[in-house]
Amino acid sequence: MSQPLRVVSFGLGPIGLAAARLALSKKSIQLVGAIDVDPKKVGKDLGDLLELGTKTGVMVRLDAEAALKEWKADVMLHCTSSFMPVVKDQLLLAAKCGVDVVSSTEELLVPEMQHKDIAKEIDAAAVKGGISVLGTGVNPGYAMDFVAIVASAVTFDVTGVQCTRVVDAGTRRLPLQKKVGAGLSVAEFEAQMATGRFGHIGMRESVALVSKALGFDVDTIEQTVEPVLATEKRVTKFLTVEKGQVAGIRNHGYGKKGGTTIVHLDLSMYVGAPDPRDEVVLQSTPPVHLKFHGGIAGDQATAAILVNNLHGVAAASPGLKTVLDVAPPRLCR
Amino acid sequence: MSQPLRVVSFGLGPIGLAAARLALSKKSIQLVGAIDVDPKKVGKDLGDLLELGTKTGVMVRLDAEAALKEWKADVMLHCTSSFMPVVKDQLLLAAKCGVDVVSSTEELLVPEMQHKDIAKEIDAAAVKGGISVLGTGVNPGYAMDFVAIVASAVTFDVTGVQCTRVVDAGTRRLPLQKKVGAGLSVAEFEAQMATGRFGHIGMRESVALVSKALGFDVDTIEQTVEPVLATEKRVTKFLTVEKGQVAGIRNHGYGKKGGTTIVHLDLSMYVGAPDPRDEVVLQSTPPVHLKFHGGIAGDQATAAILVNNLHGVAAASPGLKTVLDVAPPRLCR
Repeated sequence: MSQPLRVVSFGLGPIGLAAARLALSKKSIQLVGAIDVDPKKVGKDLGDLLELGTKTGVMVRLDAEAALKEWKADVMLHCTSSFMPVVKDQLLLAAKCGVDVVSSTEELLVPEMQHKDIAKEIDAAAVKGGISVLGTGVNPGYAMDFVAIVASAVTFDVTGVQCTRVVDAGTRRLPLQKKVGAGLSVAEFEAQMATGRFGHIGMRESVALVSKALGFDVDTIEQTVEPVLATEKRVTKFLTVEKGQVAGIRNHGYGKKGGTTIVHLDLSMYVGAPDPRDEVVLQSTPPVHLKFHGGIAGDQATAAILVNNLHGVAAASPGLKTVLDVAPPRLCR
Repeated sequence: MSQPLRVVSFGLGPIGLAAARLALSKKSIQLVGAIDVDPKKVGKDLGDLLELGTKTGVMVRLDAEAALKEWKADVMLHCTSSFMPVVKDQLLLAAKCGVDVVSSTEELLVPEMQHKDIAKEIDAAAVKGGISVLGTGVNPGYAMDFVAIVASAVTFDVTGVQCTRVVDAGTRRLPLQKKVGAGLSVAEFEAQMATGRFGHIGMRESVALVSKALGFDVDTIEQTVEPVLATEKRVTKFLTVEKGQVAGIRNHGYGKKGGTTIVHLDLSMYVGAPDPRDEVVLQSTPPVHLKFHGGIAGDQATAAILVNNLHGVAAASPGLKTVLDVAPPRLCR
């Protein structure tokens, strides 16, 4: 094997930590550094944060620029925020330091959609710095968009796409259960929704990616989000949802052209959701109907797809890329 | 939209014709020429060969080199043979003429596996000529390899891969029914098998691709092929299979390490095969089980995936590529 890829973790929330843990297990990857802003994490050994029972020698630092210059990493595993305005400076710094980026930032899936100017700025900096930047994940980034796009490869024509993702939030980590509002009243749910930082982030990006990739050129992208109320009391490892309380969300995404829905993405994430699965139906010639039985396991899968893209992004040409541009993701060892 | 891609068809057998027909329907593609060795096709208008009822203005030529120099195509849609020694000179010619290649040649899926020297020669010529060459298809190239590889992206680790493909050959074109021996006696089947040009081509390539992509590093790749006998009389659009005659094939591929099977590909293609499907099971963390219900429609899908890779290959960097290196395939318009 060639030299291991030198990787730095930027952002040590739940996903960042899970990704860092996975990266540490890979022979083809050497985790050389970690960055976070949380004072409780800075200065700690990553092994302690991950409760590995051993030291890794990787100390969490706050001074990103100095640290990046020192480490000379190949790729950054970037998990700090869902939103491009928040991560912009971090990505520009990566470009300045010559470090490629695999990011969990949902808005980077289709960077030009909501932040055309920021996308241009990051792309220009990436090209100048000779680095590539990729935003990916399981949802958005795979389950409700990429899988349908790759499935279209075996068709002559596609006139419609439906993706259904059903996640039993009761089997997931606490942050996910909280993110979908499990245990809230309807009023609390609505107050949370109004913050814009709640529920599933990235539905419109998934619709936009499918539309762009398959050439639908939709003229509107819309979404609806509703609470799903528990029809009976549900107890998870972390919390209890009383009958009538919010069990989670139902999130629809629609891409329409001339008033007709061409892309319909249907996401259910709630405690007790039956028949968890990921399903893609293409109205196509020939027709396509595929299904991940049991669904794609969200938290593990998200850490996995980030780590599994590190080598592909390291090999990509410079610029702000999307999952349509880089080599297909696959397990790295 | 930018300028259409200038495409030339090289090889007008059943798959080549189907791909050419599809290419003609795409706005983003301009079919500028066609090449074949069959005297019955040379000099004909492609529209007549395809029974379109209209002329296309694309005349089939025999003189490949002169034609390629004249047409200045961007990409060649190459469907002449399953075997690298047969196509070598055609690909070297493409390199000489600066035309990228998407090829149905099964052995190109993992070019170094059976023909390391030819692979090196094609790669060197491709780099020198500034072109990229890709071998792909539905099987091998997608159903029993690529899908499993892309499914591994959402896993931490994979310890085993099983792919099951069941095709009811009775629903397919005559050449496919003949290729799997439908209607032969067992003795005739065995005589055909001995030619090495019969049955499914590419099983070992699929095993090798999965092994390479997922880092299994298997030490043996084996296959078995057996006739499936009709348990009752079957009548297709093209032929009749009497009870006791060969209805088609069962083809297993195995990738083993230290005697243990890591990759198991199980292909059934016979008249009357029940529950047609493509199914992938990964022994992985988290586990993955996905299924194309009804299966991926072979003939249409093969033409589709070739045409749908034209833009990706046109954008790829020079060299002999595999489906692991180029952008994920997707519908082109």
